[in-house]
Amino acid sequence: MPLPERFHDIAKRVNNWGRWGTADEIGTLNLITDEVVREAARAVRTGHRVPLALPLRQDGVQTGAIPGRVNPLRTMTAVNWAMFGPDTVAISDDVVTMGLQAGTHWDGLGHVSHSGRLYNGRPASTVTAHQGAGFSGIEKVTTLISRGVLLDVARTRGVERLPEGHAVTSEDLDAAEELAGTRVRGGDIVVVRTGQIQRYLSGDRHGYAYPSPGLSISAPEWFHARDVAAVADDTLTFEVFPPEIKDLWLPVHALHLVEMGMPQGQNWNLEELSTACAEDGRYAFLLSATPEPFVGGVGSPVAPVAIR
Amino acid sequence: MPLPERFHDIAKRVNNWGRWGTADEIGTLNLITDEVVREAARAVRTGHRVPLALPLRQDGVQTGAIPGRVNPLRTMTAVNWAMFGPDTVAISDDVVTMGLQAGTHWDGLGHVSHSGRLYNGRPASTVTAHQGAGFSGIEKVTTLISRGVLLDVARTRGVERLPEGHAVTSEDLDAAEELAGTRVRGGDIVVVRTGQIQRYLSGDRHGYAYPSPGLSISAPEWFHARDVAAVADDTLTFEVFPPEIKDLWLPVHALHLVEMGMPQGQNWNLEELSTACAEDGRYAFLLSATPEPFVGGVGSPVAPVAIR
Amino acid sequence: MPLPERFHDIAKRVNNWGRWGTADEIGTLNLITDEVVREAARAVRTGHRVPLALPLRQDGVQTGAIPGRVNPLRTMTAVNWAMFGPDTVAISDDVVTMGLQAGTHWDGLGHVSHSGRLYNGRPASTVTAHQGAGFSGIEKVTTLISRGVLLDVARTRGVERLPEGHAVTSEDLDAAEELAGTRVRGGDIVVVRTGQIQRYLSGDRHGYAYPSPGLSISAPEWFHARDVAAVADDTLTFEVFPPEIKDLWLPVHALHLVEMGMPQGQNWNLEELSTACAEDGRYAFLLSATPEPFVGGVGSPVAPVAIR
Amino acid sequence: MPLPERFHDIAKRVNNWGRWGTADEIGTLNLITDEVVREAARAVRTGHRVPLALPLRQDGVQTGAIPGRVNPLRTMTAVNWAMFGPDTVAISDDVVTMGLQAGTHWDGLGHVSHSGRLYNGRPASTVTAHQGAGFSGIEKVTTLISRGVLLDVARTRGVERLPEGHAVTSEDLDAAEELAGTRVRGGDIVVVRTGQIQRYLSGDRHGYAYPSPGLSISAPEWFHARDVAAVADDTLTFEVFPPEIKDLWLPVHALHLVEMGMPQGQNWNLEELSTACAEDGRYAFLLSATPEPFVGGVGSPVAPVAIR
Repeated sequence: MPLPERFHDIAKRVNNWGRWGTADEIGTLNLITDEVVREAARAVRTGHRVPLALPLRQDGVQTGAIPGRVNPLRTMTAVNWAMFGPDTVAISDDVVTMGLQAGTHWDGLGHVSHSGRLYNGRPASTVTAHQGAGFSGIEKVTTLISRGVLLDVARTRGVERLPEGHAVTSEDLDAAEELAGTRVRGGDIVVVRTGQIQRYLSGDRHGYAYPSPGLSISAPEWFHARDVAAVADDTLTFEVFPPEIKDLWLPVHALHLVEMGMPQGQNWNLEELSTACAEDGRYAFLLSATPEPFVGGVGSPVAPVAIR
Repeated sequence: MPLPERFHDIAKRVNNWGRWGTADEIGTLNLITDEVVREAARAVRTGHRVPLALPLRQDGVQTGAIPGRVNPLRTMTAVNWAMFGPDTVAISDDVVTMGLQAGTHWDGLGHVSHSGRLYNGRPASTVTAHQGAGFSGIEKVTTLISRGVLLDVARTRGVERLPEGHAVTSEDLDAAEELAGTRVRGGDIVVVRTGQIQRYLSGDRHGYAYPSPGLSISAPEWFHARDVAAVADDTLTFEVFPPEIKDLWLPVHALHLVEMGMPQGQNWNLEELSTACAEDGRYAFLLSATPEPFVGGVGSPVAPVAIR
Repeated sequence: MPLPERFHDIAKRVNNWGRWGTADEIGTLNLITDEVVREAARAVRTGHRVPLALPLRQDGVQTGAIPGRVNPLRTMTAVNWAMFGPDTVAISDDVVTMGLQAGTHWDGLGHVSHSGRLYNGRPASTVTAHQGAGFSGIEKVTTLISRGVLLDVARTRGVERLPEGHAVTSEDLDAAEELAGTRVRGGDIVVVRTGQIQRYLSGDRHGYAYPSPGLSISAPEWFHARDVAAVADDTLTFEVFPPEIKDLWLPVHALHLVEMGMPQGQNWNLEELSTACAEDGRYAFLLSATPEPFVGGVGSPVAPVAIR
Repeated sequence: MPLPERFHDIAKRVNNWGRWGTADEIGTLNLITDEVVREAARAVRTGHRVPLALPLRQDGVQTGAIPGRVNPLRTMTAVNWAMFGPDTVAISDDVVTMGLQAGTHWDGLGHVSHSGRLYNGRPASTVTAHQGAGFSGIEKVTTLISRGVLLDVARTRGVERLPEGHAVTSEDLDAAEELAGTRVRGGDIVVVRTGQIQRYLSGDRHGYAYPSPGLSISAPEWFHARDVAAVADDTLTFEVFPPEIKDLWLPVHALHLVEMGMPQGQNWNLEELSTACAEDGRYAFLLSATPEPFVGGVGSPVAPVAIR
């Protein structure tokens, strides 16, 4: 099924190709200027830090439905190994095999293509088995720190978590922004809470994966209008799944990653953050969420922290 | 060879077992209080961010000398895969196998034992092949953000990089602290620059690994006196290697990780940071360096960022 | 729960410790002499070969129930990579991560210990995270080829496959030997068919795993009496599961691997072999089933072939 | 550099496309008929078995020169783990990450393409990151057993091992066949000994890899004339390296894998076999060398055994 007219209309409106030059590989992360970060540091009031990553473990969020995206398998290469002889210092070491998008992660700009193109008009064929992403590899994101704003859509709607098929629309984002009490601005990182991750946390991995609430096809225009640098949420698929429009799969991925050049994050645990923000009414914070610099990577695990 | 008297003397002086309770698993990270972080955020002046991680790649710093600590092998599980049919959005995904201590990383408190003991007196046998670190797994470090101070020992001594066998003593640290123009305080993260990583950056992986300058056995007492939360440097072995005292292997590891309960970082690239700090004379910054939360991990890759 | 009297009684009767010397590391494989193999080659009549391995793939037999025993994840490190420039020969390469016991495999003698001991009385502690099996590593099995005899218990009992909880007793083996029309002799490899693998082949991975028919605690004495070199079957757990005797877990593993020093194989696909043997009434063949020589391995994938 | 006229001339002469039908995926392995195997079993005289695989270990033959083709990293997922409680049977398990062509292996027909084509004219694009080899995956080789003939070129020339740049020509093969005292016939597996693997065995991994003796561009026509089913040797690159003809890289790979559809093996240890054959003058044997059935694999480790 080719992408429908409606998709292409939105794509045209949110497209950032060439905006930061034809050689650009980091898209909306260009919006995080020194000034933005300087301001973001002022969002730190108490010094309280809230971690947003899920623990990395064999029984992580992956169910096997996405081929090859394996949960972390961490094994020991040594346990109290007397490398230098007995009665002295002993070493334990470990090694991991994991899908880079298996847990709490960022999708890099190489993760998705449509119509044969990646962000900034690069040919999809520049992603290869041998090198990975020839352009916009995740290592190009050398730092990812800015002001974060929690848009707590579940709380705005007065529910524990959004219902399965709920598509988070621009109206939802407006309402959550109002609750947040701060206008989202250029260079911000937005974290959208649906509450869906509660399913995983309560042991229902399959229910977490599918069906799932998530971002609507109307969300990208909202983020584009605000000049947001990056967006993350607390679901496996990021966007509502199954999709809003029959046979239009992953349109939000395509709009964010390909058209806007905006990284997006999945499987972020926003439960503790939601409680903290609700308690003192402050929904903005310094958000530190730099991915691991895998050369050619199309994604990366991240251990994001909100500093309040 | 049993550990010598001298080691045990120092061990006694820097020991933190029980200081934060018998159940404690994070040691000196307890020193990073909300107040410390609130103050640390004030170190951000320009908003300039300096990344401190080496890119993660097959030709990383590991030479094969440490069995099993393999450089990252990142491969694609899909390249522009039309998961949902042709003419629609296509997916690229990747997976990695890597030693958790292969690149820029933190040593967790489970990484080293001596005399059958880990931090806080836990038996070394609580590290197992099956679960990894039963106590003090790297996932217990849920956030690692504080004020960072660069102690630029190479610059203090007026050299590009310290000579091979140079052991960084407490006198070196004093001098570098003076250059830094700020007194290291409780809860700070100290990053010590030897310049050794230049060898790797210039293509000499083996020369980088060994022989290497690094911390002296006198350094732990200095860090203990300042109540430092964590220390990282720009070498493979962290401490001077081969060791200062014949047949006394990895004494600094044992003092930091086992006695003090203080995480230590290796393979940090401090070159750009050194230049930046020297230019404006500001050696303190907000340092964000949260490890990936591998459950039971004895180490973790990290993508540290200095925010200035 | 300590091992019961009954277990120790059988253990005493089947024990082979010291039988081939105190330094021996391959146990019953010593029974495969040149003469045995020379005779085994005579079992080849038509030259027809029957493969007994399951294909190695992500949706293999593992369900996640055994921590860390991951199905094979094979990825490409290069796809038609023009390593030497365009218009010339292009290379594709691949890499795998897999549990050594994930698919069709042999359990090595290091796979199981009981009461702190391995085969030949070696301390269980000689298996380490750093080296794996210090004794009896799977690489010590340099060749594993002998006469194979199919004991088709399902066919003997006139069923497609044995019922879930069926424990294959020595009486079952007697009856199947009679059907086979050849007496099992010293150095033979016995393959026992339950039919259980049909569940996996029909898509029911969980049903295949558990509950499962398999060998009874009476089987080891039968194999010991015949001086069998190795035994394999077509189940995940090898022995009946859940176990025959409450709280006596994996007694057959312990008797075979620890007491007898006899390797055992699981997840062998015996369906095609069963048909072939039934058609011409010949249940003996040359069986080639050498494991991959992983140094220190406690198991290994194998691609067994019956040559008839 | 496009492939030269000379290459295309030979290609035309050895080409097997269509010979076994347009749907064929196993090429010259079709030559191993039941009759061939029945005859091959008669080559077993003493029952003596000679293993031809190198042990699989971290310090295997790979030097890092071939990106991603990593030596095996085997780690424990459990060591004497009391899965079912204390005082009962304890489990040790392991897992491996390795390049499928890292050690003693077969190249599958998907390993190499030239001019956009694979064996039987399949488009090179049928190899994908997602699925691996869409045609001629190594799992299609369900069994690989036939008569083996050792062509001991080093011994024929009266040297311990061939000099570095020696290209094994059809004349060399003729002479070695004469020494073998048996004419190579249709469906045979030929193993060619250069002695080069001695370098690896003596600890010189880099010297083993390069420069290396190996097969000449004249060899494929020899194998084609004899209707050989498969060929293996005791080098890393299989063919002489650097190549005989400037800028003509891997021509023998292209002729064997693409034009003939003939699997080829590398890193086989033929030293013990050479001694055994020389001792009794018998150079033919039953050779069992079935690869592991990785679905979509372009290669596979193998533990070949000569049964004499």
